[in-house]
Amino acid sequence: MVSIMIYNDIYMNHLNRVYNFSAGPCTLPMDVLKEIQEDLLSWKGKGMSVMEMSHRSDLFGEILHDATSRLRELLNIPDNYSVFFMQGGASLQFSAIPWSFLSSDGTADYIITGAWGKKAYQEAKLVGNVNCIFDAEKEGYTFCPNLADLQVHSGQDYIHYTSNETIHGVCFHHQRKWDVPVVCDMSSDILSKLFNVEDFDLIYAGAQKNMGPAGATLVIVKDSFLEKAPERTHMMLDYRQMAKHHSMPNTPCTWSIYVCGLVYKWIEKSGGLSEIEKVNKRKASLLYQAIDESGGFYKGHAREDSRSFMNITFTLPDEHKTEKFMMEAKEKGFIEIQGHRSIGGCRLSVYNAFPEKGCELFADFMHEFIKKC
Amino acid sequence: MVSIMIYNDIYMNHLNRVYNFSAGPCTLPMDVLKEIQEDLLSWKGKGMSVMEMSHRSDLFGEILHDATSRLRELLNIPDNYSVFFMQGGASLQFSAIPWSFLSSDGTADYIITGAWGKKAYQEAKLVGNVNCIFDAEKEGYTFCPNLADLQVHSGQDYIHYTSNETIHGVCFHHQRKWDVPVVCDMSSDILSKLFNVEDFDLIYAGAQKNMGPAGATLVIVKDSFLEKAPERTHMMLDYRQMAKHHSMPNTPCTWSIYVCGLVYKWIEKSGGLSEIEKVNKRKASLLYQAIDESGGFYKGHAREDSRSFMNITFTLPDEHKTEKFMMEAKEKGFIEIQGHRSIGGCRLSVYNAFPEKGCELFADFMHEFIKKC
Repeated sequence: MVSIMIYNDIYMNHLNRVYNFSAGPCTLPMDVLKEIQEDLLSWKGKGMSVMEMSHRSDLFGEILHDATSRLRELLNIPDNYSVFFMQGGASLQFSAIPWSFLSSDGTADYIITGAWGKKAYQEAKLVGNVNCIFDAEKEGYTFCPNLADLQVHSGQDYIHYTSNETIHGVCFHHQRKWDVPVVCDMSSDILSKLFNVEDFDLIYAGAQKNMGPAGATLVIVKDSFLEKAPERTHMMLDYRQMAKHHSMPNTPCTWSIYVCGLVYKWIEKSGGLSEIEKVNKRKASLLYQAIDESGGFYKGHAREDSRSFMNITFTLPDEHKTEKFMMEAKEKGFIEIQGHRSIGGCRLSVYNAFPEKGCELFADFMHEFIKKC
Repeated sequence: MVSIMIYNDIYMNHLNRVYNFSAGPCTLPMDVLKEIQEDLLSWKGKGMSVMEMSHRSDLFGEILHDATSRLRELLNIPDNYSVFFMQGGASLQFSAIPWSFLSSDGTADYIITGAWGKKAYQEAKLVGNVNCIFDAEKEGYTFCPNLADLQVHSGQDYIHYTSNETIHGVCFHHQRKWDVPVVCDMSSDILSKLFNVEDFDLIYAGAQKNMGPAGATLVIVKDSFLEKAPERTHMMLDYRQMAKHHSMPNTPCTWSIYVCGLVYKWIEKSGGLSEIEKVNKRKASLLYQAIDESGGFYKGHAREDSRSFMNITFTLPDEHKTEKFMMEAKEKGFIEIQGHRSIGGCRLSVYNAFPEKGCELFADFMHEFIKKC
């Protein structure tokens, strides 16, 4: 172990790690990366890498069990919910959900507050009858509605919404319970704050924002809702088979699941979700403050009541200043700050593992940049 | 760099790497694992891990381009074929292929030589009209037919077969061209030997045998066949979108693609496919020889003309000897040698990265074990 420690210390000094504001895949906790590195050739002395393990082996069984147990603990998931990992990202869920839960004579309601909700709706339309009960496209997806105000049709198969929209940087700050099943895409804010799993019937989230590398998609589903899925459908869209075979009707994305488990452990060590939420609020506040104190130089995209804590979106006065800003940021080691091409400007994605120090330094940079303009 | 070398040397002596006969995920080349380990915290000095890179970044673009270019070179893939990576393993292909290429009034022919071909057929049946033109289930999937002898119906949308069956340890040793499109599941023998891509219209392969960690699924498709796919279907089943967006209509399994690229580089350095094929034949011969020279103690599952070079399946005289054999093997550092529960006995999976030395040592162990019985 001594040699590993020395190695890491020597190596770390030469790393020049960047502040990576990528919207996902994105920054992982350094403790997690170090543990991966140490175990890369021989996981816990077992003579092989996690990448080389049979998914049916006891060793990988242990890794999978550890990941799901930690997650259940962190999110306080009740026993009447199944937890498993699928593949294909949130995008496969866009199809799999209506495929399994939208009946041939039924309808589902979709709330659209950004690009991802729109995609979910469009994919569902390929399957059956869906109904858009809210779409803020005309307003440029600058806000999320108050869920309490929305009229949901009774008797719907489910209602679907996206808790946080990465491209537009808007999120819901409140939940509500409906008397129809609620399905939520939490890809970009799961594990960033406390929430009540029991308000939902199905939650899904791609791993690559707050959990781990791309490849695994977390699904948390209430057993009574799961029972509405067909007895048999295409294997990779089959929620019943996924639940029954504990993520493994076929070979799952083992590496992504492994890293997710390490990230769950890191969240525990960091004080759990209540502490993570506090830090996330501080991080986002630093950046929103820099926007609000800029006298209109930086202009936030999201309405204040809908601001995302994960993705901070804003524009600068003109194209030239935007380019200069991005170039100078890059020189200082801040990368991936360009906004999505559909809304332009800048986007700072500061998921759980993005260090608070990076937000402090970037806020300073934002203040300094105005002075030079 | 010096510190890394010292670290690796010290560390390697304590590794006790096992000989891992897993059918997949499985052994990766040590050179590949070392490169991954060295670059884990900062890929090529860029300040972040590959896991943390935006899939839209220039850096990951470079990794993806490098992987597909090397693959094109290794397999001599003509320009009129598209190459991309999907998700969901071969199992998603089982659905996606008929979904896209089986017309509503058409039929596809399936050749079934083992458990995987059977699954592909069963999934396709959920989509439309499929026709099984060969099934060796009654014979316990002990052989592959001579493709030249098979009667294929003309006018079929495609014919599908599995080049190597991992569970039963049988493979085709010859190809043929038909006048209907040919679709082949090469998950467990791609890159293990030379073959002619132009004999196929669509080739698919999960990464986790001969290429990299589970998560990515390689697809090689002839452009004229691709044009038969519908203009628009579910995003994650949409071959046109996958080809058009170079594996990235959404976030792909970046880590698996990265490691695949390193494995392709390792194959090049190892002398390319002609050299790999020679080594694979030597490796498999060592083990089949131990079976054939055992005077019936070990009994091969596959008929001699259909023996797989990747998965060597055999039984021992009785349950007691099988258990003893597996226990002693494990004590000697040979793991994952149990056969699939459906056929029992033992299975030795010796994909490209499994070291020849391991086959020599295991053949010795097989000889020694008989003497003690």
